[in-house]
Amino acid sequence: MILLLGASGYVGAAFQRYFTARSLTWRGLDINELDCTNLNALTAFLQREHPTFLINCAGYTGGANIEACETHKADCLLGNAVLPGVIREACQRIGLPWGHVSTGCIYNGARPDGSGFREDDPPNFTFRQNNCSFYSGSKALGEEVLAGAADCFIWRLRIPFNEQNNPRNYLAKLMRYDKLVDVRNSISQLDEFVRACCECWEQRVPFGTYNVTNPGSITTREVAALMHKTGACTKQFQFFQSESEFLQKATKTPRANCVLDSGKLLATGIRLTEIHEAVETALRNWKV
Amino acid sequence: MILLLGASGYVGAAFQRYFTARSLTWRGLDINELDCTNLNALTAFLQREHPTFLINCAGYTGGANIEACETHKADCLLGNAVLPGVIREACQRIGLPWGHVSTGCIYNGARPDGSGFREDDPPNFTFRQNNCSFYSGSKALGEEVLAGAADCFIWRLRIPFNEQNNPRNYLAKLMRYDKLVDVRNSISQLDEFVRACCECWEQRVPFGTYNVTNPGSITTREVAALMHKTGACTKQFQFFQSESEFLQKATKTPRANCVLDSGKLLATGIRLTEIHEAVETALRNWKV
Repeated sequence: MILLLGASGYVGAAFQRYFTARSLTWRGLDINELDCTNLNALTAFLQREHPTFLINCAGYTGGANIEACETHKADCLLGNAVLPGVIREACQRIGLPWGHVSTGCIYNGARPDGSGFREDDPPNFTFRQNNCSFYSGSKALGEEVLAGAADCFIWRLRIPFNEQNNPRNYLAKLMRYDKLVDVRNSISQLDEFVRACCECWEQRVPFGTYNVTNPGSITTREVAALMHKTGACTKQFQFFQSESEFLQKATKTPRANCVLDSGKLLATGIRLTEIHEAVETALRNWKV
Repeated sequence: MILLLGASGYVGAAFQRYFTARSLTWRGLDINELDCTNLNALTAFLQREHPTFLINCAGYTGGANIEACETHKADCLLGNAVLPGVIREACQRIGLPWGHVSTGCIYNGARPDGSGFREDDPPNFTFRQNNCSFYSGSKALGEEVLAGAADCFIWRLRIPFNEQNNPRNYLAKLMRYDKLVDVRNSISQLDEFVRACCECWEQRVPFGTYNVTNPGSITTREVAALMHKTGACTKQFQFFQSESEFLQKATKTPRANCVLDSGKLLATGIRLTEIHEAVETALRNWKV
């Protein structure tokens, strides 16, 4: 049995769909059912239920956007930095392998040569650079808390999307705005992300950190062009002149924009669709 | 009734002595009695017990020294950054004034002119400078979590000491070592710290942040000289040639050394003994 923490969230629901489609045995565990930050309670639960694998996609995102993390700092730290540490300790106590849904939003930009950040590049959009949102800072602390964890996957998701209209879907978010900022990002098709994570476990690839983003990177203008090309959205978007104009005029909270290298994951044999193709497919199948 | 969170700790015990000596009505609340990081549980407890004031001296220090914080990061974040946020929220819900024991160890050095940091100087030994111990980082996040809190004191303690031999007592720590590092610090006589905190509430001084350190600063060599002068310790200490030699040879975890300005507190009329006098008095009354 696979135990799914955070089953009711946007990412958790995608794991649920994956398990159901493949008739896998799983159960969800919600924060209302058990205080997962209580080490003894969580350990006892795991000993009673004896899952074979645990997936943590619980975390604090602030809901529709990350601004709420700036005003709910304790919740944010609890969900994103403390909870992974408690799960690590509980899993270690009983020898349970597990995977943690982290984020690529702990990086900004790209390597000096324009290539994507690899897993062994230290995050550069964290409290330690003093340049980040509270969300990114808390998620980076979560990865620090997990440093050296045995039998643990750290899967970095980035700006999830698929063909399902949802307030958390990157494509749906863009469609809601009139004015966009043109930035380059590596992003994750949500259902491919979930499949890749599960394949990490099913195929027993080495534990560790993986950038689980679709190969390549895509700009906001390219996404907008694909919206028009596919007819999923015909809005004539305006664009901010620059990222700094966007940061000055449209938001108080700095956003990470980054290119990630998913070569480590691909080298295990797990495949993800090239990013432009994945975005175009989602838009062709767009469900309103 | 004053509610004391973390009553069983080193600082909590000093508050207990203060309350007992003055026949004040108080009760302790320990983490084993109630999960204080559970907002609903804490709020219900406060509504049932209706204290008139709450003091939080619970926190994660790693015990005898802060190295343990480097390996217990989740505990450290939970105790030092999340817990204050939960207490803030619970107190806000029911309109309960309260005070939080923070630390001066979120600063390093002194102002450019050699004077002490004031409360409105931003901390400079935090995750955001990427120069700190995990302990200091977590305590600085705790202060971020409390930014703008209503009806809340933030009392900054620094390297507590008094005349009671105890593994947590700064003077006792120094006596245990053969080789010391000569650094300048503002530090807190523990019982004066506790009295000053309680007087903040008793005298209804304005809520906010206060450096609760004894006026002035003192070097390790000066403390050693006072040990010899008073006869409390006759050991001939060796000294590291420099702070950087100490950091290279004796510890893996960076330590904050800093001068703080306690003028804001003194301006309220609350008095603390000049630091050399306070250290000498503790050493004259030293209890083995």
